[in-house]
Amino acid sequence: MSDARWWQEPCRQPDAASEAAARARQAQLTKPAGALGQLEELAIRLASLQGRECPWIDRPRLCLFAGDHGVVEENISLFPQSVTAQMLHTFVAGGAAISVLARVQGLPFELVDLGTVDLSLNLPGVRHLRIAPGTANFSRTAAMTAEQCQAALQAGREVLQRASRRGCDLFLAGEMGIGNTTAASALACALSGLPPARLVGRGTGLDHAGVARKQAVLERSLALHGAALDDPFEALRRVGGLELAALTGSYLACAQLGIPALVDGFICSAAALCAVHLNPACRPWLLFAHASAESGHAALLELLQATPLIGLGLRLGEGSGAALALPLVRLACELHGGMATFAEAQVEEGRG
Amino acid sequence: MSDARWWQEPCRQPDAASEAAARARQAQLTKPAGALGQLEELAIRLASLQGRECPWIDRPRLCLFAGDHGVVEENISLFPQSVTAQMLHTFVAGGAAISVLARVQGLPFELVDLGTVDLSLNLPGVRHLRIAPGTANFSRTAAMTAEQCQAALQAGREVLQRASRRGCDLFLAGEMGIGNTTAASALACALSGLPPARLVGRGTGLDHAGVARKQAVLERSLALHGAALDDPFEALRRVGGLELAALTGSYLACAQLGIPALVDGFICSAAALCAVHLNPACRPWLLFAHASAESGHAALLELLQATPLIGLGLRLGEGSGAALALPLVRLACELHGGMATFAEAQVEEGRG
Repeated sequence: MSDARWWQEPCRQPDAASEAAARARQAQLTKPAGALGQLEELAIRLASLQGRECPWIDRPRLCLFAGDHGVVEENISLFPQSVTAQMLHTFVAGGAAISVLARVQGLPFELVDLGTVDLSLNLPGVRHLRIAPGTANFSRTAAMTAEQCQAALQAGREVLQRASRRGCDLFLAGEMGIGNTTAASALACALSGLPPARLVGRGTGLDHAGVARKQAVLERSLALHGAALDDPFEALRRVGGLELAALTGSYLACAQLGIPALVDGFICSAAALCAVHLNPACRPWLLFAHASAESGHAALLELLQATPLIGLGLRLGEGSGAALALPLVRLACELHGGMATFAEAQVEEGRG
Repeated sequence: MSDARWWQEPCRQPDAASEAAARARQAQLTKPAGALGQLEELAIRLASLQGRECPWIDRPRLCLFAGDHGVVEENISLFPQSVTAQMLHTFVAGGAAISVLARVQGLPFELVDLGTVDLSLNLPGVRHLRIAPGTANFSRTAAMTAEQCQAALQAGREVLQRASRRGCDLFLAGEMGIGNTTAASALACALSGLPPARLVGRGTGLDHAGVARKQAVLERSLALHGAALDDPFEALRRVGGLELAALTGSYLACAQLGIPALVDGFICSAAALCAVHLNPACRPWLLFAHASAESGHAALLELLQATPLIGLGLRLGEGSGAALALPLVRLACELHGGMATFAEAQVEEGRG
């Protein structure tokens, strides 16, 4: 393939002139300097990414990536693998958290099944790519072949190519995959060199013994794959997952196509870290929605030097944290563009 | 007046049956238990307040209370007192942060001017009550007479009486008043017994010397009024402010009329604390929107045992933090009422 390593191609550069214009505008709005806190920097950042003094979010899009994980046979999840497909069905039927959040916000969303255990699964409105019947158990072998990992990365990229043609101005991703906190932790350990203890959490609700088991599985897996994990593509292929690779591809494509991404929680942040390792120039395009209750997310955010918008103790995935933060991103743009300046409003400025 | 102490009349009781039904419903929604974090408890709390298993926010209303402060002559603000009236004008003209936040969310809002220095001020769409030309300088005398303080409390109550007739199901309040962080700090000190150092902050942007000056003014004022401050009405009258009293009255009326209130930042929290001191039974009706960057807010939230929804480092007032948290409150209700149960979705529950 000529573009086998497409993700190493250049990313778009944020626009310094728009950033400067936005910063100057912020300083003139009718409020004490800094009084809108993080929302001020967010608007300025979006201005630099969208290349205009006043950014806006008119066409956000969400994509949910699903995939199964062979490592589930190590007993690291409370839910059976069949739940991945059941939840895909619930997304379609409109009963999942993300279905509700997308519906009430008029947020178009797309479902991409990279590969669930049941390759005959066929749900209306779901793009079934059937790359593999879930990944292989990475505590025994590599999760994916190079071809599978490339196909999953490319699937993420194609979502953004379609979104870009539709004028998408903010991309939100979510994921579903029983066992994927284990894969995300493994990937983050491989990329960062941090010990599993720092990056393992309760997932969907493991008890203390479950967390210890998960940690032991990670330690075994990291030892098995050893120095091969030093290469980020190999780390993704060996201990990642299909939906993790698609997420990674989507974030990289965001940066290449010039579309800001609002990153969800723990799993998405692990994919974001992988994207940054594959091509560091993608980093400015990644905005972080929330600090998850999944322990390990704090370490991931620190590695990414990210300051998320909300807390709330969420740990659901599905892109739900990103969808919950979306109103704040929109309101930051509305405030930046819609407030009057001191001069327009004829209000005296402070002496500060 | 027969209802001179109307705020001591009983508050509505949250409905335990609706709370239990909502809690049972939450446990059945298609997500791991607790995965929606604070939003789960928020929905259950609203269910108990609105008296239905599935709460909703269809008719939120915002009121901005404005007033001037005599203590400004002690040089505790960067902005001249004339800015209170100028900002009222900006609220009406649509250029302030809260104007934008209300407009884009379809949030009806009302402006009540309790008393600015210019009693001839007459702005379209503003209810000018002209209770006083701002308060007196509380570092030298009581801020208000008993009649003025009662009138301001009553003005807040009347906003809620009107809102209640219009079917309001969530009340948001904001405030504008140059100097009012100083009055709010004084009121909070008087009510809590905490030293000024714990409750004084930079306001609209004071430097270190400004904060020290503000703290000295507070210490002098607390010494001047002495033991009279042990009574919460007297504390409000002596070191509070017109808009602080109206806010306090509005929160008390929320609890009596059965309308949940979403409390904004530092000033509103000081009024909420005063409401709780005047009638502790109002506390369940108060939800807290955000943790302000104004130092002293953390201590106030602790006194109120409140866990706010967002951070973001806001310190603007105007009800802007409450308006920014409103989408999260709405989405919490939508998730609670709109998600499918495990049984409806035919999804297997976890073993946890």
